[in-house]
Amino acid sequence: MNKVIDPWGSELAEDYGKIIKSFGLEVFNSSMFPNANRIMRRGTVFAGRDLKRIADCIANKKPFYALTGIMPTGDKIHFGNKMVVENLKYFQEHGAQTYILIADLEAASTRGVTLEQARERAMEFHIPAYIALGLDSKKTIFYFQSENKDVMHMAYEFAKRITLNEFKAIYGSADPGRIMGAVTQVGDVLYPQLKQIMPGIIPVGIDQDPHIRLARDILARVKSKYGFIPISSIYHKFTPSLDGSIKMSKSRPESCIELPENEDILCKKIKRAKTGGRDTVEEQKQKGGEPEKCIIFEMFKQHLVGKDTELNQIYNDCKAGVLTCGENKKKACELMTKFMEDFNKKLENAKKQVNKLNFIKFR
Amino acid sequence: MNKVIDPWGSELAEDYGKIIKSFGLEVFNSSMFPNANRIMRRGTVFAGRDLKRIADCIANKKPFYALTGIMPTGDKIHFGNKMVVENLKYFQEHGAQTYILIADLEAASTRGVTLEQARERAMEFHIPAYIALGLDSKKTIFYFQSENKDVMHMAYEFAKRITLNEFKAIYGSADPGRIMGAVTQVGDVLYPQLKQIMPGIIPVGIDQDPHIRLARDILARVKSKYGFIPISSIYHKFTPSLDGSIKMSKSRPESCIELPENEDILCKKIKRAKTGGRDTVEEQKQKGGEPEKCIIFEMFKQHLVGKDTELNQIYNDCKAGVLTCGENKKKACELMTKFMEDFNKKLENAKKQVNKLNFIKFR
Repeated sequence: MNKVIDPWGSELAEDYGKIIKSFGLEVFNSSMFPNANRIMRRGTVFAGRDLKRIADCIANKKPFYALTGIMPTGDKIHFGNKMVVENLKYFQEHGAQTYILIADLEAASTRGVTLEQARERAMEFHIPAYIALGLDSKKTIFYFQSENKDVMHMAYEFAKRITLNEFKAIYGSADPGRIMGAVTQVGDVLYPQLKQIMPGIIPVGIDQDPHIRLARDILARVKSKYGFIPISSIYHKFTPSLDGSIKMSKSRPESCIELPENEDILCKKIKRAKTGGRDTVEEQKQKGGEPEKCIIFEMFKQHLVGKDTELNQIYNDCKAGVLTCGENKKKACELMTKFMEDFNKKLENAKKQVNKLNFIKFR
Repeated sequence: MNKVIDPWGSELAEDYGKIIKSFGLEVFNSSMFPNANRIMRRGTVFAGRDLKRIADCIANKKPFYALTGIMPTGDKIHFGNKMVVENLKYFQEHGAQTYILIADLEAASTRGVTLEQARERAMEFHIPAYIALGLDSKKTIFYFQSENKDVMHMAYEFAKRITLNEFKAIYGSADPGRIMGAVTQVGDVLYPQLKQIMPGIIPVGIDQDPHIRLARDILARVKSKYGFIPISSIYHKFTPSLDGSIKMSKSRPESCIELPENEDILCKKIKRAKTGGRDTVEEQKQKGGEPEKCIIFEMFKQHLVGKDTELNQIYNDCKAGVLTCGENKKKACELMTKFMEDFNKKLENAKKQVNKLNFIKFR
């Protein structure tokens, strides 16, 4: 088993090696993909399934698709969504037919909103937010889950192809609602192949791998009927919480930055972030900092610093004890504020376009 | 607990008393329903839930609905379907809005047919067969499950309202496909109330009671959102197998008469049926027969003899030892042959009307 590729050796990533082993993932190798994006180059994208099939499509300009779903609840998205969009955008720019489904059905059944409310929220915020993160709005195909009878029909059929114990083995538990949500997601993931049999790639956070496994299991069982090609997947690490725990989560709001985030508290949150700094300034100057343990550095790496040379410089200056945590936090604050301003501007623009997007019309 | 009402005291019905107790059913009382039909009068209809609510609708001419589903697989129906239609017809004639849904989604996912094949079979046989059994084709509303997004959306929502353990408690097991089928059925059962809140009655064989219980449980949990009125149900006993076991089943084809049945073998099957006859003709003349144990008598009672006075006569003559089993079988053969001829004729007529039926058109 190869070690996780992580050019800056983040210790935050340690668990990911185990994940790769226990779930039988492929280690992600950015050299397979031309002009790999920032998170691919830096080891934030760390694993996948059947990646060569997609690399071949890109190399040979063969048709393939990339797909993700939007859960239209709340009025924020998070950095995990941002990374999904970055990978989606990468594949879109390299020839993928790009699908985004709005999981309004799932939202309505789990989050106490009506289908109408879920759709409204999607149109007013979530879809514009995804566009604001850089997708080509003209090349992206959208649909609402609740309108897509083909997906619902597949979900129905797929439910018969798994046993309760198999479901439990994948998900750990098996509530009826969870089962129904999961098989519907499998329908979504395979939907583009109802129109055209082709490889497809699903960019997800690693916590979503159970859905990918379920989809691949079911796909194998309905292959003789549908001829589907197994889906590929590509996994990114979590954006860590500012307090140092593995995943940023709004359950700890003081350690979580959402998109958009109130600009007044943005820098306050960053100021309290866990760094790789030493106990004293003296020690820091002598031994240097530990960027591998630093959430600020991880934010630079994953989200805020575009140029690899610049990121390298920060890394080296920190290690050399030249750069203080205070300076880094100040820089992070500036970059994050600029990012949010930019996001908000693009979001407002995207909101104006939302009615012109390519929504699949169902009869 | 009242004894099961069964004017001819069939011993075949013994288990039904236990069922009433263990599932908390109401004993069916035909005097609640004006002009009770044959199977209601004779105790073949033996139990229900919330029957008074329906009786009140009939008495006060208030709106209510009656609903059943057709599983469009195979090229036969059975006597259980016939009894469902008889009760449906009764409620239709007493003011019920009558719904029949075609469970094409269920058929496609469980029986290895495509949705298109399931629909074709429904149109070519099952729907005409139900009409042939006496429904008013102009007053019956049909829909295809796979087209009804409202039902699928409710199914999705309802799945979140039950736990796996609750499901297991009702059904004994919980396969993903079974769960999905069951919550979809609940959606079907409540669908008429999406348009108009009103009482509804579902005529079923007693083996279908788990679906009714699930529907009533879920309904109580979504009451604040939808305002649904609890559904009522009405249960008929099984038509026993010709060999005397409790339920006629095509898994024992030699003891099973389907609709339509090959007229050549109809009388052969009847000839081999279990009766309540004594070991010798002598004994029969002395002690009389035991119609309570006789499948032929049960067929007369449930399906073949319309007039209660005539049935009484048969019962009394058998008990008196005047009537032999051979004579009864001959009569059963004649009546069954006539019934099949009549059914086939009506079936051919109904096939011609099938395109003029009231199918709900979904956008």
